[in-house]
Amino acid sequence: MKRGLAAKDWLLSAHESVGFERASVIAHVVSGEQIHHTEHLSFRTPKRYALINIQDEVEAVLKRSGVRDGIVFVGAMHITASIYVNDAESGLLSDIAEWIEAIAPYGRDYAHHATGEDNGDAHLKSILFHPSVTLPVTGGKLDFGTWQRVFYAEFDGERSKRVIVKAMGIASRE
Amino acid sequence: MKRGLAAKDWLLSAHESVGFERASVIAHVVSGEQIHHTEHLSFRTPKRYALINIQDEVEAVLKRSGVRDGIVFVGAMHITASIYVNDAESGLLSDIAEWIEAIAPYGRDYAHHATGEDNGDAHLKSILFHPSVTLPVTGGKLDFGTWQRVFYAEFDGERSKRVIVKAMGIASRE
Amino acid sequence: MKRGLAAKDWLLSAHESVGFERASVIAHVVSGEQIHHTEHLSFRTPKRYALINIQDEVEAVLKRSGVRDGIVFVGAMHITASIYVNDAESGLLSDIAEWIEAIAPYGRDYAHHATGEDNGDAHLKSILFHPSVTLPVTGGKLDFGTWQRVFYAEFDGERSKRVIVKAMGIASRE
Repeated sequence: MKRGLAAKDWLLSAHESVGFERASVIAHVVSGEQIHHTEHLSFRTPKRYALINIQDEVEAVLKRSGVRDGIVFVGAMHITASIYVNDAESGLLSDIAEWIEAIAPYGRDYAHHATGEDNGDAHLKSILFHPSVTLPVTGGKLDFGTWQRVFYAEFDGERSKRVIVKAMGIASRE
Repeated sequence: MKRGLAAKDWLLSAHESVGFERASVIAHVVSGEQIHHTEHLSFRTPKRYALINIQDEVEAVLKRSGVRDGIVFVGAMHITASIYVNDAESGLLSDIAEWIEAIAPYGRDYAHHATGEDNGDAHLKSILFHPSVTLPVTGGKLDFGTWQRVFYAEFDGERSKRVIVKAMGIASRE
Repeated sequence: MKRGLAAKDWLLSAHESVGFERASVIAHVVSGEQIHHTEHLSFRTPKRYALINIQDEVEAVLKRSGVRDGIVFVGAMHITASIYVNDAESGLLSDIAEWIEAIAPYGRDYAHHATGEDNGDAHLKSILFHPSVTLPVTGGKLDFGTWQRVFYAEFDGERSKRVIVKAMGIASRE
């Protein structure tokens, strides 16, 4: 099958984080024992296409929030990126890159390109992998299975991007 | 590739809303500063297949809710429709319609059709694009990036349909 | 199209539940009228691939939680399984199994298999159908349309698995 990209065109980072440049606290709202804590993380990916483990960043925001039980919402703030949950195994990241490229290939003659853009594939990839996830929090930690990790998927990078991380729930009692 | 439908068979509405016929308040529950506000929006799409920008309707429910910080859940109440977030650019809507049609084509001999239905493709499309999204709310507004818009995707329309919009969170202080 | 599996290789259970072996209450946190109730459901699927209606189990956890208005988060705790919402019609389950198999086929030479695993397809299937859903709760019940049902999709079963069900919201007044 002809493909626009190969796995080598992607930044596939199973264990290293994206290297966020800045975490900005947007809001910290407290109502009784309820805490809602919102941060926007800013960064720039060195390649146009990337799958990057952001588990550490999400856990850091959760810790700063003080939420003990509730949810963390994690969302790309762009329409050419996604957040997904799966395994941090290097071969698998390569499989995922090849697979999404076969389903929504780069380099086709998309109608969207009449605007001057060349990222029609990135929009389709973003829809396929979804822009956001909701994650459960119990005992102050992500209530995950053993192998679950949160990933940021970038399909039109090399420029400044943002991810919203919003932790909401009942506060830790200390 | 042979396809059951072309973009011309779809209602692709980047900037006009679906024209909801009725917004019914189902519940408005207040507990201290917490508000949970639920509406069901009813409407009928003029074509069987449609991608429609419902950002205005979702923002109107959010405003009526009085929620300042939390989430809005937006869900199709049908198994042949979806809610998704992406760009409101006309060419892109056409690309999306062509793409989903190629992945889950209309007109195949689906086992589901033994029931007398002809909408097997619509169920697969609904799963692919997902029936619902959770959206973050900060400062009384959707905490979106510049280009993010909420869309309703209809894959078996021309009859009455419902969307649930449920805003939950900490109330505005006025 | 050559496929690694046919519908007959799947356990397709539209109306019978998965037969969870154990429901463990992980946390039950109360703060004023807010309840957060978390259970982990454990079970083993008799076939490697399965689509199973878990509506009854989710509703049972919701009832035990005492939540009247809010959300239920339902998530597979594995990276080779999914939770999705659609119709419980037998023919459709067969269509879904054939369709996902065509998009992410079993038996290909995935890079992930260098680890000794043979479940590369299961990871891709999990991403396609997503590991979790958020469901709205109004009046103590799932705020669903007529035909919506929650399914557990297993892509690497025949061993012990877990699903997290977390109900969060404003308590029933009794």
